[in-house]
Amino acid sequence: MKQSFHQLASVARLHEFAATPIDLTQEGILTPSRVEAMCSEQIGLTLLWSTERITDACCDALCALASETKAVEKMHAMQSGEVVNRIEGVESENRPALHTAMRDFFGERSSSEPARKAAELAYGELEKLKQFLHEIDENGTYTDIVQIGIGGSELGPKAVYIALETFRKEGRRVHFLSNVDPDEGAKIFSELSLDKTLVVVVSKSGTTLETLTNEQFAREKYAKAGLRAKDHFLAVTGEGSPMDNPAEYRARFMMWDYIGGRYSVTSMVGAVSLAFAIGMERFLEFLKGAHAMDKVALQPDPKKNLPLFSALLGIWNRNFLDLPTVAVIPYSAALSRFSAHLQQLDMESNGKQIDKQGEFVDYQTGPIIWGEPGTNGQHSFYQSIHQGTTVVPLEFIGFKESQTQDDILFQESTCQEKLLANLFAQMIALATGQKSSNPNRTFLGNRPSRLLLGQRLDPQTMGKILAFYEHKVAFQGFIWNINSFDQEGVQLGKKLALKIIDQWVFLRNNKEAQLKIFPLGAAFLKFCRK
Amino acid sequence: MKQSFHQLASVARLHEFAATPIDLTQEGILTPSRVEAMCSEQIGLTLLWSTERITDACCDALCALASETKAVEKMHAMQSGEVVNRIEGVESENRPALHTAMRDFFGERSSSEPARKAAELAYGELEKLKQFLHEIDENGTYTDIVQIGIGGSELGPKAVYIALETFRKEGRRVHFLSNVDPDEGAKIFSELSLDKTLVVVVSKSGTTLETLTNEQFAREKYAKAGLRAKDHFLAVTGEGSPMDNPAEYRARFMMWDYIGGRYSVTSMVGAVSLAFAIGMERFLEFLKGAHAMDKVALQPDPKKNLPLFSALLGIWNRNFLDLPTVAVIPYSAALSRFSAHLQQLDMESNGKQIDKQGEFVDYQTGPIIWGEPGTNGQHSFYQSIHQGTTVVPLEFIGFKESQTQDDILFQESTCQEKLLANLFAQMIALATGQKSSNPNRTFLGNRPSRLLLGQRLDPQTMGKILAFYEHKVAFQGFIWNINSFDQEGVQLGKKLALKIIDQWVFLRNNKEAQLKIFPLGAAFLKFCRK
Repeated sequence: MKQSFHQLASVARLHEFAATPIDLTQEGILTPSRVEAMCSEQIGLTLLWSTERITDACCDALCALASETKAVEKMHAMQSGEVVNRIEGVESENRPALHTAMRDFFGERSSSEPARKAAELAYGELEKLKQFLHEIDENGTYTDIVQIGIGGSELGPKAVYIALETFRKEGRRVHFLSNVDPDEGAKIFSELSLDKTLVVVVSKSGTTLETLTNEQFAREKYAKAGLRAKDHFLAVTGEGSPMDNPAEYRARFMMWDYIGGRYSVTSMVGAVSLAFAIGMERFLEFLKGAHAMDKVALQPDPKKNLPLFSALLGIWNRNFLDLPTVAVIPYSAALSRFSAHLQQLDMESNGKQIDKQGEFVDYQTGPIIWGEPGTNGQHSFYQSIHQGTTVVPLEFIGFKESQTQDDILFQESTCQEKLLANLFAQMIALATGQKSSNPNRTFLGNRPSRLLLGQRLDPQTMGKILAFYEHKVAFQGFIWNINSFDQEGVQLGKKLALKIIDQWVFLRNNKEAQLKIFPLGAAFLKFCRK
Repeated sequence: MKQSFHQLASVARLHEFAATPIDLTQEGILTPSRVEAMCSEQIGLTLLWSTERITDACCDALCALASETKAVEKMHAMQSGEVVNRIEGVESENRPALHTAMRDFFGERSSSEPARKAAELAYGELEKLKQFLHEIDENGTYTDIVQIGIGGSELGPKAVYIALETFRKEGRRVHFLSNVDPDEGAKIFSELSLDKTLVVVVSKSGTTLETLTNEQFAREKYAKAGLRAKDHFLAVTGEGSPMDNPAEYRARFMMWDYIGGRYSVTSMVGAVSLAFAIGMERFLEFLKGAHAMDKVALQPDPKKNLPLFSALLGIWNRNFLDLPTVAVIPYSAALSRFSAHLQQLDMESNGKQIDKQGEFVDYQTGPIIWGEPGTNGQHSFYQSIHQGTTVVPLEFIGFKESQTQDDILFQESTCQEKLLANLFAQMIALATGQKSSNPNRTFLGNRPSRLLLGQRLDPQTMGKILAFYEHKVAFQGFIWNINSFDQEGVQLGKKLALKIIDQWVFLRNNKEAQLKIFPLGAAFLKFCRK
């Protein structure tokens, strides 16, 4: 029997708290002891939430919400391979979401049959990849990969690649071609030696329009250079897809329908390029980190279950303090594209209007996710964060040490110290604000934030953080009772685009007859015809 | 005598319209004739707004709002050098905002004395730069520039550099170092031949912490390589700043206090690196485009004044349809960082809580600005745009032709045609939605968007688009009666960061005594000490 969000006892209690949330600007509220008390460390990552507008009683009500909605049980179900990607009573994808199986090779493994089977298949692909990269290493020909893919086949792998560039094997580079804009492909290929370049084409269905187009674009470059594309092209695709074709690709690596694009970084979608760039050993460290966080996500105590607790804080800000957006701000240049990955992960998973029973929701679901690294943001949009009329909750990410340790002492402090000092200063300034007789120097404060703090951004830590967010998003979906694993909302645009392309071709071939196929589309096309 | 926003006759009228906005999902509303009627072309750019939730009567009321708030007169005042950066009755910056003078060298020039003087000074710097680059070209040593700067000294120049990379002189590259995170500098300098590299340090005040730190980081790299930094380092700074020092820099280029960082792309802040990369002739084309848009912004008829009309549509969405964010989505890979520039330009200008008389506003000011290029976004956050619970108005940018014309025909259409077809399809899909018996395939529609359409993204078009947004933002500030040219909201965080840095140094040097300077800051620092 479904209990709707507004009928939950904990939700009623949380609405009471939200009527008069704690005022962080008051003297004696944000104290050192609050900072030290409101935190939790697991597997080397610490979550700090003293600068959220939250009390202990409010935290307890959030934990009750997790329990009422059976959030941890649902995480168990997901990791065990139950059919979580489903809307009851209507046609839907009806399948598991088993991205956790892609890294279930360390320590105690899942005992459920579907999860074990998925992990075995995944391990088989990893072995294939290991063998393939061994050959590549031996022969020493290849320096570059161009990964062709869009959405999850680009955003996650690219964000992680940039994050771990410091750990690259010498001379190895990865480039990502996603946009159907021809200028993107032209730019990438103009700067490469094709004979030293592999092309990895990634599409689960083998039918993604942008990806097939860019593959063709790339194949024509190879043909023009007198090279045999087949020797350079690899496929990452679903079994039996049009791309699962040994005549066209030097090697093929498999993914499965229970791996959603935005959850696919630890599958072959990320593996081929990342292991090429940083080596298989470091890539396995990355998987190990993700796996360790998978286990944290099964912890029954919400305060030890970091992704669950962060999910609950997000729900507090979204559904009770009514804040429509979230900015994710890593104080780490290496995470420059991580917010773009989270934007997909979160908004495509939880930007939903119906619940798992197919009814329209009467509460807010996933917020707008955006963000850029700090300290850069401080010199950009922080004006609005501090003094704008729309309050934005912030999720900070920081590290105690830099990646390279290539640092200087300037005015008595290091760059890394300056970076962290700025991060902490922002958390305090946003929470406490500042009174002033000059209204332009008044800061109202009470702008909530929290921090995920790690030791150093190495491959294992990257894996932990990646999985932390995957599970945070899944937990929010569980609590909102929505399906975080489908994406029906992208279909209509695709369908109309194909109609407009048909209209365009038709107009070109039949100059007399016009507007036949899609008059509204044709009205826009008029602006493009001289 | 001030008339507050809510007292304006046009605002009352607009609230009436907003009670029952036009329903774009109804049959017969979004027709080809609406598409063709609701557009305006100026200097080669077309604004299309048929997919906004707007009627002609509503447009008239918006035009009345522009007239009631004297928006065009205020633009005249700004371009003439009046003191527009000011809050009455309290200490404020009290100066003009004369970025339009940085490109007032073409056709009919401003006749006002301050604007003419500013343009003369700017032209002098351009001449200096031309001479400098001529020497650089002659001697042929330099291939790379590292531009060190943060906020406006990075975001705008970098966005434009990436947009115009296709037009680079062969072998010339620019790199941007902004973040105080040492990993950013380490990565950039690990890949360069320092002897072939110039370093441009940009800070108006000559005191920006991140920039000075990164300058020192760079100088130490040169020292280690046995090179004399002075031969390679250039300064862009204000006259008399600590960086205005011939002993430290090979050349210095000036900026002035009437150029805000986020409006500085067409000053020496952008000029040095951009003209190095694409050549002076193309850089002048870029300035010429910006100047042409400056003139459009003086048009009294709002429908011909593209930035004003776009500002009004934005105010309709923000203040009357209550939409808290705006996504700027260029269907152009070359504009991949343009939304990040606009995020600063808009949010730092208009994320304000007080009006120009120093009173707290009781209406919404600048929205949250975010965005990534299409078609990429379609495979990322568009799920939420189509079916999420928070409606996001979109500002699309598109071009009829690609930059390189390096394109292929695949399945009967080119990449560029596919790109544009997708853009138009999204505008239609978002507006009209789709009915379905499956609630997961239901699209509610009525999601507003508009499009700025150009012929091809060349330097001149880039200049036009840059200035279009500068003026759109300024117009919104004029209409909201706020000061779009200061940024007091960034000060508190800076101040607290310095306190925490002091605390850190103190803790390192006096292990016994603790918590003396800033106990709250010290509470956070405890997490970083082993």
